[in-house]
Amino acid sequence: MFKIIPLDRGLENVKGFYCGATNVGMRTATNGTTVDGDVAFIRSTTPCDISSVFTSNTFQAAPIKHYQAYPQGFQTDFVLINAKNANAMTGKKGVEDIDYIISKLQNRLDVLNPVMSSTGVIGYRLPLDKICSAFDALDFNATHSDETARAIMTTDSFKKELAFRVELNNGESFNIGAICKGAGMINPAMATMLCFITTDANIPKSDMDELLTEGSEASFNRISVDGDTSTNDTVMLLANRQSNAYHKEGFKEALHKIMFELAMMILKDGEGANKLVAFEVKGAKTQDEAKKASMALSNSLLVKTALFGEDPNWGRIASTIGASGIVCDEEKLTIHYDDLLIYSDTFRELDDEREERAYAIMKQERFKVTCDIGLGDASYLSYGCDLSYEYVKINAEYRT
Amino acid sequence: MFKIIPLDRGLENVKGFYCGATNVGMRTATNGTTVDGDVAFIRSTTPCDISSVFTSNTFQAAPIKHYQAYPQGFQTDFVLINAKNANAMTGKKGVEDIDYIISKLQNRLDVLNPVMSSTGVIGYRLPLDKICSAFDALDFNATHSDETARAIMTTDSFKKELAFRVELNNGESFNIGAICKGAGMINPAMATMLCFITTDANIPKSDMDELLTEGSEASFNRISVDGDTSTNDTVMLLANRQSNAYHKEGFKEALHKIMFELAMMILKDGEGANKLVAFEVKGAKTQDEAKKASMALSNSLLVKTALFGEDPNWGRIASTIGASGIVCDEEKLTIHYDDLLIYSDTFRELDDEREERAYAIMKQERFKVTCDIGLGDASYLSYGCDLSYEYVKINAEYRT
Repeated sequence: MFKIIPLDRGLENVKGFYCGATNVGMRTATNGTTVDGDVAFIRSTTPCDISSVFTSNTFQAAPIKHYQAYPQGFQTDFVLINAKNANAMTGKKGVEDIDYIISKLQNRLDVLNPVMSSTGVIGYRLPLDKICSAFDALDFNATHSDETARAIMTTDSFKKELAFRVELNNGESFNIGAICKGAGMINPAMATMLCFITTDANIPKSDMDELLTEGSEASFNRISVDGDTSTNDTVMLLANRQSNAYHKEGFKEALHKIMFELAMMILKDGEGANKLVAFEVKGAKTQDEAKKASMALSNSLLVKTALFGEDPNWGRIASTIGASGIVCDEEKLTIHYDDLLIYSDTFRELDDEREERAYAIMKQERFKVTCDIGLGDASYLSYGCDLSYEYVKINAEYRT
Repeated sequence: MFKIIPLDRGLENVKGFYCGATNVGMRTATNGTTVDGDVAFIRSTTPCDISSVFTSNTFQAAPIKHYQAYPQGFQTDFVLINAKNANAMTGKKGVEDIDYIISKLQNRLDVLNPVMSSTGVIGYRLPLDKICSAFDALDFNATHSDETARAIMTTDSFKKELAFRVELNNGESFNIGAICKGAGMINPAMATMLCFITTDANIPKSDMDELLTEGSEASFNRISVDGDTSTNDTVMLLANRQSNAYHKEGFKEALHKIMFELAMMILKDGEGANKLVAFEVKGAKTQDEAKKASMALSNSLLVKTALFGEDPNWGRIASTIGASGIVCDEEKLTIHYDDLLIYSDTFRELDDEREERAYAIMKQERFKVTCDIGLGDASYLSYGCDLSYEYVKINAEYRT
């Protein structure tokens, strides 16, 4: 039917898209090294349909309000992105600032319904002159996905980009590329992050909406670094249809693969995190309860610090499930670390052999905790990371 | 009407109560210094009515199950407490172990319906012989509140005890004393803690139930160190009525004062915490929404790390309110740090003068953040603390 082929690099693999970045002086060098950009763009040579998923935070940032003021189903060919300033909690002026920036952009380049996306500190107006100075410096025909991915980073320790080609049986193919940022403020109801996905597939708008929503639920909404939701979270999918090819299942699989892998990169980059842990709750009475318990585990500070301490501490796992308020029974519950049964009604106290095996599992960079509630058929899988000294350091020192 | 007089020390101020502790070898010296006790008792020379509030964690520890197996309205004259082992997730055996311990105690001392309370590591059976060895070592006529308060500590860095005398206009008086433990796993739905309150007041049982529940809601349920709820949380009030005096308002005020001050001690002792911050949310549409936003603030990792970093970071405050999902509007919201207006619709960006004043406020050990939602009349006040490197260290190393 189709083959999904990983490609090197990111957005430059997708037909008809350009991207690049420049530094206008919002991000400055801290130790004399090269400074990444702070203003970036993604544009298409032809109009795109666009689908987006935005933060559930009540205080949506100005760029999200600006986007939502376009008529439903609008097309665009330009996304402008800046780091260092979230343009959030900036009121009506924050939206007017975007209109001003766009009017300056339109003096320089013929663009259709440009949208903006911002990340950084909350509560400050954008530096308009600095941002508009980018329009002279940017090469609008560049294909520098790497630079673009670096320009949108905040506390990220590495850039995040990915691309796949989907090859169909009839010899046709289409491409999907993506860049993403996120490390802290990563949480259930939409991780704090920006993600831009481009495709040249000939995908109907209704499929874009459907598959992007599904994909978000299966990826970014299942990871938790610290349980917080930002004002700016955004996932955008732009389709210019410059390849004539399309195959729904192939697109879906590749899109979800991209979104899931980017979500894992964010978690891996979870401020100061060293371990990536999957929390599967199964045997719950309802799907809601499975999700509640699973997300409670990936959010729990005590579980996160136990992971950091590599303590084969099923007591904290059990206590967190109990504290989540779901229906459960300590005689029915079982807990596994990978394949190791670490708790059951008849098997509560850790003996030396199992403790040693548990240590070995916890020393891995990735492992899985499975909690079987034993009362039903519902299950949910979410992903968390450990909490290290570094998390506190980064967040005590970074002003958002 | 009445006067509330603070007394030195704790439980020894209350007529007819004895208390003390011993070390049976569960808690061992780490550096050659004096070792605190690990088994403690509180007893009354006459039967007491008892009211209790227990954890909302589904997995209640064995001592809580054991307590609840007594008939409603039972009387008791003896509480046995141990540290180092929570007797939680120990199944039916955990409850049988308590029965065994009590039978041994009854061989040694004539006690009525003794109850037990435990704190420490989850998932291990109690060391029965060690605990029972305490019955030969304990002096059941001691009044060592200090030793008792120390014996129940886990990660606490200081013991917590308090007492008040309530003097009535007619010259009569009664006493209330309390000891308490708790530092980590402190959270909304009942902080992880044990608290034992004794009184000689001639209080009706119905008032005990009413005032203890009210008091818990106004104190321990409003503090958050890390958003976790343990399997063992317990607040007990024992009344032996050996003073004939009682005055409901006087008792209520003194009891709530004790519970509130103990809650603040727990927060101050929040593992590694340096600051105690009150989060008042007012002007919310409903009481539920005010509580939701206020607790979101005292639970937020990003807010806690910003407090630790002394960053006058109203952006994280606003974002956390927005993320809590309550109805709000950035044009109606105002935020104060103590008396300093730090955010309003017309006053968003921090100028140097306000930033400097905000720094000065945040450098204090205690301050208040007030968020006025501006949409209604409901308000809620909760209390949080900062999150420091020490929190991570303590919880990575401590096995619960």
